[in-house]
Amino acid sequence: MSNTFGHLFRITTFGESHGGAVGVIIDGCPPAHKIDLAKVQAFLDRRRPGQSHLASPRNEKDRVECLSGLVNGITLGTPITLVVRNEDVKKDHYSDLTEVYRPSHADYTTDLKYGVKAPSGGGRASARETIGRVAGAAVAEQILQALIPDLRVVACVDRVKDVQATISAKITRAQVDEHPLRCPDKAAQASMENLILDAQKQGDSVGGSIVCFIYNCPGGLGEPVFDKLEADLAKAMMSLPASKGFEIGSGFEGTYLYGSQHNDAFVVRDGKIRTASNRSGGIQGGISNGETISVRVGFKPVATIFKEQDSVDRSGQEQKIKPAAGRHDPCVLPRAVPMVEAMAILCVIDHFLRQKAIAHTKGVERL
Amino acid sequence: MSNTFGHLFRITTFGESHGGAVGVIIDGCPPAHKIDLAKVQAFLDRRRPGQSHLASPRNEKDRVECLSGLVNGITLGTPITLVVRNEDVKKDHYSDLTEVYRPSHADYTTDLKYGVKAPSGGGRASARETIGRVAGAAVAEQILQALIPDLRVVACVDRVKDVQATISAKITRAQVDEHPLRCPDKAAQASMENLILDAQKQGDSVGGSIVCFIYNCPGGLGEPVFDKLEADLAKAMMSLPASKGFEIGSGFEGTYLYGSQHNDAFVVRDGKIRTASNRSGGIQGGISNGETISVRVGFKPVATIFKEQDSVDRSGQEQKIKPAAGRHDPCVLPRAVPMVEAMAILCVIDHFLRQKAIAHTKGVERL
Amino acid sequence: MSNTFGHLFRITTFGESHGGAVGVIIDGCPPAHKIDLAKVQAFLDRRRPGQSHLASPRNEKDRVECLSGLVNGITLGTPITLVVRNEDVKKDHYSDLTEVYRPSHADYTTDLKYGVKAPSGGGRASARETIGRVAGAAVAEQILQALIPDLRVVACVDRVKDVQATISAKITRAQVDEHPLRCPDKAAQASMENLILDAQKQGDSVGGSIVCFIYNCPGGLGEPVFDKLEADLAKAMMSLPASKGFEIGSGFEGTYLYGSQHNDAFVVRDGKIRTASNRSGGIQGGISNGETISVRVGFKPVATIFKEQDSVDRSGQEQKIKPAAGRHDPCVLPRAVPMVEAMAILCVIDHFLRQKAIAHTKGVERL
Amino acid sequence: MSNTFGHLFRITTFGESHGGAVGVIIDGCPPAHKIDLAKVQAFLDRRRPGQSHLASPRNEKDRVECLSGLVNGITLGTPITLVVRNEDVKKDHYSDLTEVYRPSHADYTTDLKYGVKAPSGGGRASARETIGRVAGAAVAEQILQALIPDLRVVACVDRVKDVQATISAKITRAQVDEHPLRCPDKAAQASMENLILDAQKQGDSVGGSIVCFIYNCPGGLGEPVFDKLEADLAKAMMSLPASKGFEIGSGFEGTYLYGSQHNDAFVVRDGKIRTASNRSGGIQGGISNGETISVRVGFKPVATIFKEQDSVDRSGQEQKIKPAAGRHDPCVLPRAVPMVEAMAILCVIDHFLRQKAIAHTKGVERL
Repeated sequence: MSNTFGHLFRITTFGESHGGAVGVIIDGCPPAHKIDLAKVQAFLDRRRPGQSHLASPRNEKDRVECLSGLVNGITLGTPITLVVRNEDVKKDHYSDLTEVYRPSHADYTTDLKYGVKAPSGGGRASARETIGRVAGAAVAEQILQALIPDLRVVACVDRVKDVQATISAKITRAQVDEHPLRCPDKAAQASMENLILDAQKQGDSVGGSIVCFIYNCPGGLGEPVFDKLEADLAKAMMSLPASKGFEIGSGFEGTYLYGSQHNDAFVVRDGKIRTASNRSGGIQGGISNGETISVRVGFKPVATIFKEQDSVDRSGQEQKIKPAAGRHDPCVLPRAVPMVEAMAILCVIDHFLRQKAIAHTKGVERL
Repeated sequence: MSNTFGHLFRITTFGESHGGAVGVIIDGCPPAHKIDLAKVQAFLDRRRPGQSHLASPRNEKDRVECLSGLVNGITLGTPITLVVRNEDVKKDHYSDLTEVYRPSHADYTTDLKYGVKAPSGGGRASARETIGRVAGAAVAEQILQALIPDLRVVACVDRVKDVQATISAKITRAQVDEHPLRCPDKAAQASMENLILDAQKQGDSVGGSIVCFIYNCPGGLGEPVFDKLEADLAKAMMSLPASKGFEIGSGFEGTYLYGSQHNDAFVVRDGKIRTASNRSGGIQGGISNGETISVRVGFKPVATIFKEQDSVDRSGQEQKIKPAAGRHDPCVLPRAVPMVEAMAILCVIDHFLRQKAIAHTKGVERL
Repeated sequence: MSNTFGHLFRITTFGESHGGAVGVIIDGCPPAHKIDLAKVQAFLDRRRPGQSHLASPRNEKDRVECLSGLVNGITLGTPITLVVRNEDVKKDHYSDLTEVYRPSHADYTTDLKYGVKAPSGGGRASARETIGRVAGAAVAEQILQALIPDLRVVACVDRVKDVQATISAKITRAQVDEHPLRCPDKAAQASMENLILDAQKQGDSVGGSIVCFIYNCPGGLGEPVFDKLEADLAKAMMSLPASKGFEIGSGFEGTYLYGSQHNDAFVVRDGKIRTASNRSGGIQGGISNGETISVRVGFKPVATIFKEQDSVDRSGQEQKIKPAAGRHDPCVLPRAVPMVEAMAILCVIDHFLRQKAIAHTKGVERL
Repeated sequence: MSNTFGHLFRITTFGESHGGAVGVIIDGCPPAHKIDLAKVQAFLDRRRPGQSHLASPRNEKDRVECLSGLVNGITLGTPITLVVRNEDVKKDHYSDLTEVYRPSHADYTTDLKYGVKAPSGGGRASARETIGRVAGAAVAEQILQALIPDLRVVACVDRVKDVQATISAKITRAQVDEHPLRCPDKAAQASMENLILDAQKQGDSVGGSIVCFIYNCPGGLGEPVFDKLEADLAKAMMSLPASKGFEIGSGFEGTYLYGSQHNDAFVVRDGKIRTASNRSGGIQGGISNGETISVRVGFKPVATIFKEQDSVDRSGQEQKIKPAAGRHDPCVLPRAVPMVEAMAILCVIDHFLRQKAIAHTKGVERL
């Protein structure tokens, strides 16, 4: 297993969905910063199930506790440990599933690799695993705001199944959070909502996509050739449960254009070098150029559905499987919005620290 | 900069496109394996420009030389160093560009970050940088073939601009390489070729997408939660020059389905646990399940075009830029096919080694 | 800060000495092994202060709690989180010290680097930080015993100040733990004890050295050229608080010999290739050779003494400092014995996993 | 194998002693610095055999060539590749040894681990492997001099077998290099020289120790708890061929003192916080404090001697072994001096870059 993300700002997450606790150690956090745990809690609350009729009715309080790294709310530079106890664990929901592999879940591959079939709801393959990531990012964001006051990381639902929203150039988290769908396109909300409720009624699930913008990201972040900023963003997003696709800037759509249509001309605006268009998505040659960074992530319909499916049990016998109606989201997208933001924030802060090492050791030769 | 890829099988690449040489050090290569340098050369030749009328006429011989790590063609377990001298360097092609940033190239961000504007054709942002990756993968592939004889990694062009090919379930490299386009769909070849030649005539460029299959990949590869196999594949592919999008399995298309349509039922076939469909793309919960792994990568139209464009020079003055007709590919896709294969191979071998450490230290408890 | 040790078996420790808790995340732990938390507790108890009249009278219970990674005591392959709450925290012991830097402590450099002067007894520079290391090693040892039943890691006190013990070739932990000094040389115990009690009476402290043996270590562990086994052992030991010197095998003493006296002749014993002597200390060319590994670590006299000393306060004024008689060990050595064992265990298990990746991917060519 | 050292300033070395070439890739080198390859060559020349009658008569020219990373001698921020061709390779010197393991060499463990018995003089276990380290450090030193003009790293021979030199507080490289022994204590030189020449005459070898000082090292370098500066220095030194012991500051000697004798009182000197003594060796709590850093490294007598020894061959038969009089140093110490300096430089630059990331992201809260 590999549960650490980042090079200089590193999070290590832990915890099974239905074990004792989940959480994170943040190592490499800059010292002498004020951290407000209420803001960490607020970020976690956005990820939490049970926020609306569109999400799982599980009532996870998810109260965060800090075990180390802060004195009077100030970072010491030592590892910050944040823990969330698992409270609403009803083990019997899972008891009938323990010997049959759930289709398109991680049960089978987990057994294949580790030789264990966790009775704990999939263990680390649960969306609950992301609590550690979000908690880590909630600390990172406060540091970033102190260092780069204008920076904003905002994601929103872009599409639910085949209902495509129109997302304006500049959105805020407040706008996104106005509606439990976390899609700021008011015109699309009703159709999206119907789709989800319909799927839920039928014991089915739907997927879609999320866009994420990083506004006012400083230029110069990214470490070619392998740790290009978009490469690390891709890895970050594709490590999220249920993600199936990643795009930077113009993405796959841009591959339908001619080079002359796709290139971003350089212009001078307000005395600064800028690009006229932004099909590059704020990153060129793996390095941020100061324009808005935009990524899109596709999430499959969640694998947990309440219909009978063909499967196989641990002994290799074919079996039907039909979960009792349980506590799962018919659509993961609204809750995935803060997860996507979290991964973007973690990429930015890590590359920001890495860039500092270069920026402050650069020579003065002209080439 | 970060020029190392992999954890146990690690490549470190080096070399500017128009400096002295490019190459790679492979560290962590398993010992006592036979390596045929002619096969390394053959893999490199597939990446080389000048292979057909569809590609850049540069005549780069790209002869690979081995400086360390092999005795009598046998791996010692020590670092293998492979070097390709740069020969066909015509510096004047680049001389007029040195002070103006080329749109959608890495010139500007490189200057921003490193404070240097390399006279060497973009330095490490050139496709020539990938020689080291391909050479490293050509060694890795020979090791993999010895350890997993059935394994095959095959990529091909899937789409050029808006001409979409139909790719059959099982393809071979020989089939792919029959046509210089590296698209095995004979019905699509003519339209694709016309598109590229047209673009070339107009001094323009086109992009598209590449699919890559990993056949007979052993189950159990992948290290959740952050080094999931698809996360590392995504990083690998998004670190390639000009890549803009990544998909695993059903990708973005799959996000239009209901969960009941998307889930891959488990079945027993030939006494083995298999999936009836493969929308998961051979990976579930970040771990390979033994089915064919399939990824798709989108590449933008290359930024080098022979049309006048708006830009800005190093002193911050707006300038027109128009490269003299030079030696660049109007479409990078055919040559990107071996690059995509290379990155897939490098992911597989690294995760294969990582998996060995677990597989051979596992306990005997039953859970 | 860098609080992670190991490549494949990785521990990340956290916690300030007088904050909420200390602990460890173990990542990369092999799955399907039985872990007995009582054995973890027993290992921690050996490290605990208050074990005898020779050590600090602090009554730290140090009860370990497991938050993740185990179900029914079996490893899942997921991160194992072990936490020990800080209970016996008397903050006033430290209040008078907060503005004056304690000589030869980490106060000044911590302030210099992080801009914080932790009110928490030195924060991460306290010996209490090692709880996470020892807890991680206590898990590692159980895995190692399952995989290599003969392996034993045993350390003991070798010298206290200028009282040198004679340590026989083969010792057990039971022998070592018979006397609170953790020195199995009965002839030396009285003098050592007197030295320590004398120092304590005078408010002073003493140092000395510890030897550690790894019996029945498999050959082949170590990754030249930088991760040689002795290099990682050196790093491990020199990362312990108060350590000042490290030796492998014959150490500095061996550098007084001629090569012809120092070389270890190869012989055949019981059909196996062995060495006649073992001045190499079980490691040749950075790789274990199957002989007993032996290292020696020197620990300075602890910096906390109860005498008036010259110092400087945070504002840069020279000040006298004299701690009120407190709860500190006059000699850290007996409690450092399990710490040294812990670091040796962590090196061995990590290199054992790394070796497995090579051993099971090796080719069949003969060179 | 693990041939990479460092986190942000990373060297990866390659090359067998008697293969095609040896060398290094430097990744993470700060851009826009002037590098003088003549200075790199000069540093390499200090490591080279054949410098005097005290060293091996092999005539290795060791001309360094730069393959990447520099344009007009200026660093691009891209990987710098430095290569030294192996020229003076006389393979027959080794032919009679190929099947018998040389005592206290790496032959046996290399075979055990990698299944190969390199015909190339030990492969990576040769002192020739250090060329890459020294070349990397020679670049690093030029960067450091630009960034910290006062910084000096100077090592010298401290003891040969039992002849102990007296080394004054402040020495320069020029003083050290005045005599081929690289020991600046003129009183000790004659005895040392006699010892070495005597050993040589008898086909034997001698060891000893080297001290290394880092003058004017900035405070704040080091990343507790595992990457403490002395821990990384220890690893660096113990990864050098033939090293057997490491000490920081007062080392093992200091463990004979009482705490009240060992502690370094803080004082104010020239308006700065300093220590009155320096038994800490410039590092406290794993972080540099601005005082001179001093380490000592013990090197065993080299294993290559020209006397008959007992050994075993590859097939497990006991054999006598006696190398034909060859080209080996009777004492590695004079040539190890630049190797020790190199490893110290590599530690300092890597920690300097790491420290920059913290120093420039620190908050403003007061604790």
